[in-house]
Amino acid sequence: MFREEIKVLDCTIRDGGLINNHYFTDEFVREVYRSLTEAGIDYMEMGYRSSRKYAPPAEFGAWKYCDDDKIREITDGIESDVKISIMVDAHRVAEQEFVPVDQSPVDMIRVASYAKDIDKAISMVNRCHDLGYETTVNVMAISAENEFELIEALDQLAKCPTETVYVVDSYGNFFSEEVHHMVKLYQEHLPGKRIGMHCHNNQQLAFANTIEGIRKDCNLVDGSLYGIGRGAGNCPLELLMGFLKNPKFSLEPVLKVIQDYMIPMRDEIEWGYMIPYAITGILNRHPRSAIAMRKTEDRDKYLEFYSQILDGID
Amino acid sequence: MFREEIKVLDCTIRDGGLINNHYFTDEFVREVYRSLTEAGIDYMEMGYRSSRKYAPPAEFGAWKYCDDDKIREITDGIESDVKISIMVDAHRVAEQEFVPVDQSPVDMIRVASYAKDIDKAISMVNRCHDLGYETTVNVMAISAENEFELIEALDQLAKCPTETVYVVDSYGNFFSEEVHHMVKLYQEHLPGKRIGMHCHNNQQLAFANTIEGIRKDCNLVDGSLYGIGRGAGNCPLELLMGFLKNPKFSLEPVLKVIQDYMIPMRDEIEWGYMIPYAITGILNRHPRSAIAMRKTEDRDKYLEFYSQILDGID
Repeated sequence: MFREEIKVLDCTIRDGGLINNHYFTDEFVREVYRSLTEAGIDYMEMGYRSSRKYAPPAEFGAWKYCDDDKIREITDGIESDVKISIMVDAHRVAEQEFVPVDQSPVDMIRVASYAKDIDKAISMVNRCHDLGYETTVNVMAISAENEFELIEALDQLAKCPTETVYVVDSYGNFFSEEVHHMVKLYQEHLPGKRIGMHCHNNQQLAFANTIEGIRKDCNLVDGSLYGIGRGAGNCPLELLMGFLKNPKFSLEPVLKVIQDYMIPMRDEIEWGYMIPYAITGILNRHPRSAIAMRKTEDRDKYLEFYSQILDGID
Repeated sequence: MFREEIKVLDCTIRDGGLINNHYFTDEFVREVYRSLTEAGIDYMEMGYRSSRKYAPPAEFGAWKYCDDDKIREITDGIESDVKISIMVDAHRVAEQEFVPVDQSPVDMIRVASYAKDIDKAISMVNRCHDLGYETTVNVMAISAENEFELIEALDQLAKCPTETVYVVDSYGNFFSEEVHHMVKLYQEHLPGKRIGMHCHNNQQLAFANTIEGIRKDCNLVDGSLYGIGRGAGNCPLELLMGFLKNPKFSLEPVLKVIQDYMIPMRDEIEWGYMIPYAITGILNRHPRSAIAMRKTEDRDKYLEFYSQILDGID
């Protein structure tokens, strides 16, 4: 499948940062940037622009804040067409600063929001749009959302200046028919806007569902190196590239950064398909209880975990 | 999705046996049988009925041969509705014996065949059918098959007494549209026969493609515990159960055997998504080169492996 309009965003550092409190080394972030550049990927998401009021600097690495100067330390000296993206949580906005786009290394600001916070998201979009940034709104956890409220949020987003609105399967709960349904719903309520797709791999469907989104005309899709991301992780970028067959893509640099960095990293941090994430995905729950149990000695007591979730004590 | 006609076959011991030369302990095989019984699964495939002429007993465990007496050692004493299946390679038939079905613990014989060997498969089907067994023909590696020859094979199968013909994505190469295409092709050329689905997980699509088969009316589908199987493995049974939502299913016994046996087993044998399997899947090759390289010191040299495959020296 090749369609020139499809753009690919790598969220390795941003979604992967949720596993290690955003403590990636500059060397690694730089190698990812270099690899994505050589591979022909369109966007690289560096992390969050979080408020230091809500996210105390003692607890997080640099990619929780993505200060412009920090990003420049990575990108300086590497000739690249990769656009830089950062994410902001709509409901945790405080003193974060954004300079006009021509004074920043950032090209795109993605606003993550629950449907209920959509007014806050729109306010952030307005602010970033006025500064010249590309914007997206990523409506999270929609598998657990009341569709009436979701439609209300989409109808409001239709009137705001964001170019792209994302279908986000935060819980890794969707099957292909639900992806088709959601993309169609978004298209109906967001005329003229680009639809994005961000999937989680709880049921080993992140890649499959991303493909299904693409088939229904999603044109901005997320992947990550070796599927790194919170819990079960995301759609593996290497598979997405194999599917998209864009002639500008080159798989080799991606394979190289996976073998040199991601494989050793697996000894330190954990992501990917595991039974606790499958359980929260099947049951349409936030993965937080599965993430928590994987950090205890009971990490492989699946039966106990399943019964706790069913009993509502997660 | 619930459709009463859908039957599920667990191929843990059979496809998993390809990783360890079929040396599973009786204890494990028995626990799998007990677990599938309690979980409400329809079929359990024990392994191959291989010829000892082609497969010397010094090199393989008991599940390479699945002698009736050996199967009885597992099933005796466990009250169960699970039907027992074994597999035969159509092109490696020699002195194997089959007694009439009412004297055997086996219910179903699945004949694995390449399109070119379909006459041998039909001959085996005739023999097993006359002895009273249920039969299937599993046409392997069809992603690399000339469609003209595949159709010729299907047209011959249409005239033989097998009840079920399987779409088998041996190389883990198919995307959903190809699954839809193949199932439709099978339905057109095999009127009145049940279509089966057996997928491999090279591109993390085994579960997704099994679902797509089900949506197109495949009614006999394969899964395995925690996705165990050769190379990247198969469709995880636990996910399939979550999707099918058959009220007779119970997930707990499956979770228990995974936590008690499959997780420790991961320290001894390897299966599941890995970059070399992704590469052979994307490039539509047999996984043998990837399996071989995973046994060497160069197991994580993906870049080198990719370039060898592209250069045709795998």
